[in-house]
Amino acid sequence: MTHNRFYVAALVLMAGPACTSAQTRSSVPDFKWFRSDVERIFAEELRHGEAYTLLKDLCRAAPKRLSGSTGLADAVKWGERTMKRLGFENVHSEPCMVPHWERGKVSRLTIVEPRALAGETFSVTALGGSVPTSGGGTMAEVIEVGSIGQLRAMEKQPRGRIVFFNQPMDPTIIRTFQAYGGAARQRSRGAAEAAKKGGVAALTRSLTTRLDDIPHTGGMSYEEGVAQVPAAAVSTLGAERLSDLLGKHGRLVVRLELDCSWHPDAPSANVVGEWRGKDRPSEIVLLGAHLDAWDLGEGAHDDGAGCAQVLEVLRLLMKLKLHPSRTIRVVLFSNEENGLAGGRAYLAAHKKEVTRHVFALESDAGGFTPRGFSTNAGAEGLAWLRSAAELLRSAGASEVRAGGGGADISPLGKFGVPLVGFMPDSARYFDLHHTSLDVVSAVHPRELELGAACIASMIYMIAETPRPFPRNPIR
Amino acid sequence: MTHNRFYVAALVLMAGPACTSAQTRSSVPDFKWFRSDVERIFAEELRHGEAYTLLKDLCRAAPKRLSGSTGLADAVKWGERTMKRLGFENVHSEPCMVPHWERGKVSRLTIVEPRALAGETFSVTALGGSVPTSGGGTMAEVIEVGSIGQLRAMEKQPRGRIVFFNQPMDPTIIRTFQAYGGAARQRSRGAAEAAKKGGVAALTRSLTTRLDDIPHTGGMSYEEGVAQVPAAAVSTLGAERLSDLLGKHGRLVVRLELDCSWHPDAPSANVVGEWRGKDRPSEIVLLGAHLDAWDLGEGAHDDGAGCAQVLEVLRLLMKLKLHPSRTIRVVLFSNEENGLAGGRAYLAAHKKEVTRHVFALESDAGGFTPRGFSTNAGAEGLAWLRSAAELLRSAGASEVRAGGGGADISPLGKFGVPLVGFMPDSARYFDLHHTSLDVVSAVHPRELELGAACIASMIYMIAETPRPFPRNPIR
Repeated sequence: MTHNRFYVAALVLMAGPACTSAQTRSSVPDFKWFRSDVERIFAEELRHGEAYTLLKDLCRAAPKRLSGSTGLADAVKWGERTMKRLGFENVHSEPCMVPHWERGKVSRLTIVEPRALAGETFSVTALGGSVPTSGGGTMAEVIEVGSIGQLRAMEKQPRGRIVFFNQPMDPTIIRTFQAYGGAARQRSRGAAEAAKKGGVAALTRSLTTRLDDIPHTGGMSYEEGVAQVPAAAVSTLGAERLSDLLGKHGRLVVRLELDCSWHPDAPSANVVGEWRGKDRPSEIVLLGAHLDAWDLGEGAHDDGAGCAQVLEVLRLLMKLKLHPSRTIRVVLFSNEENGLAGGRAYLAAHKKEVTRHVFALESDAGGFTPRGFSTNAGAEGLAWLRSAAELLRSAGASEVRAGGGGADISPLGKFGVPLVGFMPDSARYFDLHHTSLDVVSAVHPRELELGAACIASMIYMIAETPRPFPRNPIR
Repeated sequence: MTHNRFYVAALVLMAGPACTSAQTRSSVPDFKWFRSDVERIFAEELRHGEAYTLLKDLCRAAPKRLSGSTGLADAVKWGERTMKRLGFENVHSEPCMVPHWERGKVSRLTIVEPRALAGETFSVTALGGSVPTSGGGTMAEVIEVGSIGQLRAMEKQPRGRIVFFNQPMDPTIIRTFQAYGGAARQRSRGAAEAAKKGGVAALTRSLTTRLDDIPHTGGMSYEEGVAQVPAAAVSTLGAERLSDLLGKHGRLVVRLELDCSWHPDAPSANVVGEWRGKDRPSEIVLLGAHLDAWDLGEGAHDDGAGCAQVLEVLRLLMKLKLHPSRTIRVVLFSNEENGLAGGRAYLAAHKKEVTRHVFALESDAGGFTPRGFSTNAGAEGLAWLRSAAELLRSAGASEVRAGGGGADISPLGKFGVPLVGFMPDSARYFDLHHTSLDVVSAVHPRELELGAACIASMIYMIAETPRPFPRNPIR
């Protein structure tokens, strides 16, 4: 209803003056009145911010937080305890069941033939969700493919072999998330595609533009009715070496050993806390990040940084007594990495009030220097965000681009909730994404704080401005 | 002359259509025709770039490059050798004499009284240009001041004391260079100001927003007719500790020991190479960075990154056969850090052709992810740069702000040469500026490459577009 009202207002105004950009803006709130609030937010965060302390605290309390682990259970407790300590309202955990997969202790790839190279090993790690290898490992010839498409075009060659997907992320794409998106299917779908062709295992080039010896894990899934074969990622240097050896020797037999394991689903929870709105408490502005993380590092950028930022945003607004009209609800989601059970459970638990969610923002792209926001909002919402983000221009965060909001909040999207993702600089992110390098010391305190201040500014403006943010059509 | 012609064109066009932004743009070349060139530049640099290799190479050949050192002599040789290897034209060194100051081996600050704390030391380092302490060091009471202004308002208290300047960089200023500018006079002028009040030494809080135990050196100078007293920087943690102790004990006697030394001026050189323009070879687009660096780290961000980028820019354009109309001249300047002898020598050697310098761009703000450019250009030049930088929007480098170009090229400014500074993200720069932390591993390859591609794009557009860049008035 609100959406229609604004749409009409915009159309009426479009009949007015001749300038297109002025037209679009006419339906947009005058965010410039928030300038002094934004300045206060930045000054407070850059002088007395606690985002980095929150991050260190989380990663000390629960460095390993993969779904089903005691680490994630510790993180849930930490989240609830921290929200209470910070004075959030209505703090509670909302239970959900999450998948429980464990990496185990052995991820190993060894050359068997040619004899001269026998025993040479590669840096590999199991992909999240893989079945283990059986007995003494999976021993087979390696066949290299440049893409899933190339594999599909093959006939008998993959049969009985380990399919080695060696599609690099395109380094020429500026926004590395886009390059990641272009190469990630070999990881998520490689095992199923390999099995369909009779392959006995899948080996994927790590998803990074760096050449180094660090394997990157990440989620994968099987397909119903298709054999479940083991799947692992090999470092980019390892992938280059494998490819060179295949070129030189033609035939290369390797042994893949993985002792990962599946267990029954485990109880977990989303952690929720809020600041009830001053005037329109029933209207909810959701601010989310995910608590769970891959187990190789500390999940510092992915997504400890996001957790720290969303907690910090509400702490900061409360400290500054910037009490907005609408309710700000902070949600630390469970199980983003391998299942999205938390995001789905949130929707299930809040389905009745989904129409009261006027806006949802997630921080899950790393704790780097801010650039702006991505969003699934339509033209009017884009105009709102661009106008609001103008106040973040001096902070270098005025870019607003069409795109997604974040995995955890995505289930809300089909009910018309506008989704927004915080967008930091992406140059360094895939150096450490899903690896042992994703540790607290890789996050820069000032960059994390700048991001928190940007998110706090945006959330406050959206939660406080009289008109509600334009809703998306229901899909 | 060209300036006047364009100014008239702009005025004529301003009498035309009603829209202000269109007016300004009307005198601006249509840079969008360069889109495919810019795309080629980025693709080549991000796929096959050598900026990081050049940086590693320089820092391996000459990790220590302070003026007067054998390291800087090695760097000059490296620069000439590298330009020749890369196929630059007219490669040569242009001699200049540079100051020769050495840090020595001892920079030490020790508590003498109160007795209970005697022997406690602080992380300090001599400021560049300081005289040494004499005999067993300078032993005196410490007096803390918050600024030079506060010191000036004092009467007898500073007499016989070590003046401790404890003005922090303002962390709330987003662009850290501005915060640095706001606090840097205590370092550059502190010793002279202290001496005027009878102080026996100056101790300056390190210029960074981080709290850590790393001292930051940097240039300082004395004043004619004023006593030359020793000057050192203390780490920010050390400064906090000193301030706490002064608050607690009131009286604090310390011993400062510095064995730095001055030597006769030494021969050095700017290294110059070019690619002669295809159509207007007499018109010069200068691209500079500085070879010298403080001696504590490797001068990787300051300014090895800039040297690598400007060399890479010309290598890249030559590789892509993007041969512009005007001459691109790459200059690796000597002695930016403590004297600017290189910048002045360049002007002196090229005074006759200074009017043929149509544009000068320096990269000396670190090798971080690109944000845009700063410039001393007037309104018309700003409009040109903003229009050209639109092609760098997807690379996150479309910001163009009024400001300086760079110290080495600044002498050209008063002859009307428009000065431009490459502007990377500044959040991390003062963590490592002028410290032992400024080493190659602190530079991120992709960020360095993105910057090189931005500079290459801008330089190519300016060197190739038919009209010359609007000149500034002569000062």
